[in-house]
Amino acid sequence: MPGMTAYAGFFEVCSPKQGEYVFVSAASGAVGQLVGQFAKLVGCYVVGSAGSKDKVDLLKNKFGFDEAFNYKEEPDLDAALKRYFPEGINIYFENVGGKMLDAVLLNMRIQGRITLCGMISQYNNDKPEGVHNLTCLISKRIRMEGFLVPDYFHLYPKFLEMMIPRIKEGKIVYVEDKAEGLESAPAALVGLFSGRNVGKQVVEVATE
Amino acid sequence: MPGMTAYAGFFEVCSPKQGEYVFVSAASGAVGQLVGQFAKLVGCYVVGSAGSKDKVDLLKNKFGFDEAFNYKEEPDLDAALKRYFPEGINIYFENVGGKMLDAVLLNMRIQGRITLCGMISQYNNDKPEGVHNLTCLISKRIRMEGFLVPDYFHLYPKFLEMMIPRIKEGKIVYVEDKAEGLESAPAALVGLFSGRNVGKQVVEVATE
Repeated sequence: MPGMTAYAGFFEVCSPKQGEYVFVSAASGAVGQLVGQFAKLVGCYVVGSAGSKDKVDLLKNKFGFDEAFNYKEEPDLDAALKRYFPEGINIYFENVGGKMLDAVLLNMRIQGRITLCGMISQYNNDKPEGVHNLTCLISKRIRMEGFLVPDYFHLYPKFLEMMIPRIKEGKIVYVEDKAEGLESAPAALVGLFSGRNVGKQVVEVATE
Repeated sequence: MPGMTAYAGFFEVCSPKQGEYVFVSAASGAVGQLVGQFAKLVGCYVVGSAGSKDKVDLLKNKFGFDEAFNYKEEPDLDAALKRYFPEGINIYFENVGGKMLDAVLLNMRIQGRITLCGMISQYNNDKPEGVHNLTCLISKRIRMEGFLVPDYFHLYPKFLEMMIPRIKEGKIVYVEDKAEGLESAPAALVGLFSGRNVGKQVVEVATE
């Protein structure tokens, strides 16, 4: 499911082109880690954000992102993005929402694309944070589009055709976060919202 | 210019289909009054919002909108939109931003399109109001896209071909707001932000 989500969201909704500049938030998550690798397959420059040093290392050293940064250590997200994208962002793969989206809007290039996969920073707010820089969508003629993976299930054979040989060759790698025992499930769920997991959060109920 | 803006924004960015439900904000403005008429030409159901009783009358009686309402008299924009679009909105032509956009997001239909032409309610704010309901873009798979008319100037011949016969036949009408004398220009400009004008605000510097 995260694989198909990354595949549909990146290839179908973002329409990436070689040489474009791609930013992925929650990049060490189940979907983000694949989006970054897909971006490299297309020949894009890709930067990811994540919430710990370990995750940042994983992005650069295991998943092949060109750059990565720990958003929790950046007092000014706008300045961080300007550092990694001095010429701006063509494609933003959105997993978090809120302040990050506002900073990205300021750094998008003309005719950029923002693909909304998730907004995990917002789901537990009674009233989601406001996003203030939407006028950038007009001045920069940006397309922002939400998607849900069931609309793309017909692409599953095409997805497998791309993935299977690349996984076998080690060109695409994948990390899961496995919690053991049903009793660990509530904590694992809560961990999603504090950014504790790396990759897909799986709960192994029993090993037999 | 407002004509080409309405033409490009509605036909090229919104991709309207017969029978769809269209909402236009600032609908008595230079662009909005044309978008509503274009929507009727395609066979859409179209509702406009404006800021006075006179403008609402104009929308219904002169420009042929199916319905129109005065947003200043609606304490709850979400409820107003539910009244006019019980089954939701397919296409929103955005001219104002802020609270109206938030209410519209709650009332969009699946795979709807939001075309951002302007956000006049936000231009004079030091910090624009936050938009809180963007997660609707994901759950409803909505495309939101900003545009600027110069990207579409190549369509000018096609635009004239559509407009000229329809203006001659009286099927498309147009209202301008003419202020007389250069000394009236500052007040006319300020009027744009308080919604005083109807249609394109023109300043006639001299009659000779």
